[in-house]
Amino acid sequence: MFETLLAHIDRFVKLSDTEQQILTNHLSLQHIGKKEYILNEGDVCNANYFIMKGLLRMYFIKDTGQEQTIQFALENWWITDYTSLESRQPSGYFIQAIENSEIAVLTKANREILFQQIPQLERYFRLLLQRMHAANLMRIQYLFDLSVEERYHQFNARFPEFVQRIPQYMLAVYLGFTPEVLSKIRAKK
Amino acid sequence: MFETLLAHIDRFVKLSDTEQQILTNHLSLQHIGKKEYILNEGDVCNANYFIMKGLLRMYFIKDTGQEQTIQFALENWWITDYTSLESRQPSGYFIQAIENSEIAVLTKANREILFQQIPQLERYFRLLLQRMHAANLMRIQYLFDLSVEERYHQFNARFPEFVQRIPQYMLAVYLGFTPEVLSKIRAKK
Repeated sequence: MFETLLAHIDRFVKLSDTEQQILTNHLSLQHIGKKEYILNEGDVCNANYFIMKGLLRMYFIKDTGQEQTIQFALENWWITDYTSLESRQPSGYFIQAIENSEIAVLTKANREILFQQIPQLERYFRLLLQRMHAANLMRIQYLFDLSVEERYHQFNARFPEFVQRIPQYMLAVYLGFTPEVLSKIRAKK
Repeated sequence: MFETLLAHIDRFVKLSDTEQQILTNHLSLQHIGKKEYILNEGDVCNANYFIMKGLLRMYFIKDTGQEQTIQFALENWWITDYTSLESRQPSGYFIQAIENSEIAVLTKANREILFQQIPQLERYFRLLLQRMHAANLMRIQYLFDLSVEERYHQFNARFPEFVQRIPQYMLAVYLGFTPEVLSKIRAKK
């Protein structure tokens, strides 16, 4: 049931059959329909979510009332609000499905149990977080350094799958410009 | 010699005296003068750096030729270029001292040895990286959501120590506006 996740973990650390069994015993499977939520603003975030199938996004509501997507996640990505997860304070984010999705849910409590029983999982998450940190810095760099058009082409080159599956207006807002600008860039191409 | 770092680790995980000894045996102390570098663009980043005393910044050179600071680090912060550290590719960043600084250097090779001998250190870095990831997302959120003035006040409220010690022009660029705008905001206050 959780083969996708086991295969992903196997790229970073090696777990024994017993450890894989312990791990999957502490996961639950969640099906979530398009436009449904696994996290609402004001709720305490309780789990890490691994996308086995589908596409999700995390967003917040700007002072202007507009939605601002801050992160996308498709197959083989984890998503959560670490601020709320760790502090147990209400989240300022929404996490919503863009497509019908299948998600492995690892609650905070189960994750702590697993870290005790399978220390290699600390390593797995540490390695993933290093990559996420580096990617975030690169994203901040692009916001400062690249023109609107360069930002689109760069994202397109790095994440072609996202560009194909994310609605155009949502991608535009994520990259920091209007859907109209995105249409123009695409038409030019 | 590394008391500051040991105290910081102790806030997250508990190490035995023997483990603390093993750890400090794998660190080296580096003194670095104001404006000197511990990482130059084009070099492969080889270590994680923990600031015991002083203040550093990580920056890149924009297409326009201007320096864009992307991260500051003072006492009790770690700094590195994880992209270069993990990929062994040349870094796109500079890491430079803003003040005379005292740094604990943990090389990549020694960190791997330590992870084998003290698995709790994986947890320590995993917890730090979670916080950094959350802080990065918040920073991206502020870039999208806050006015220039709000961004300054928000940074000032969260990191008063940084604001006192970072040169005004450097802080302005970090927050994404010109030194002139920052002067105006400060004058208003």
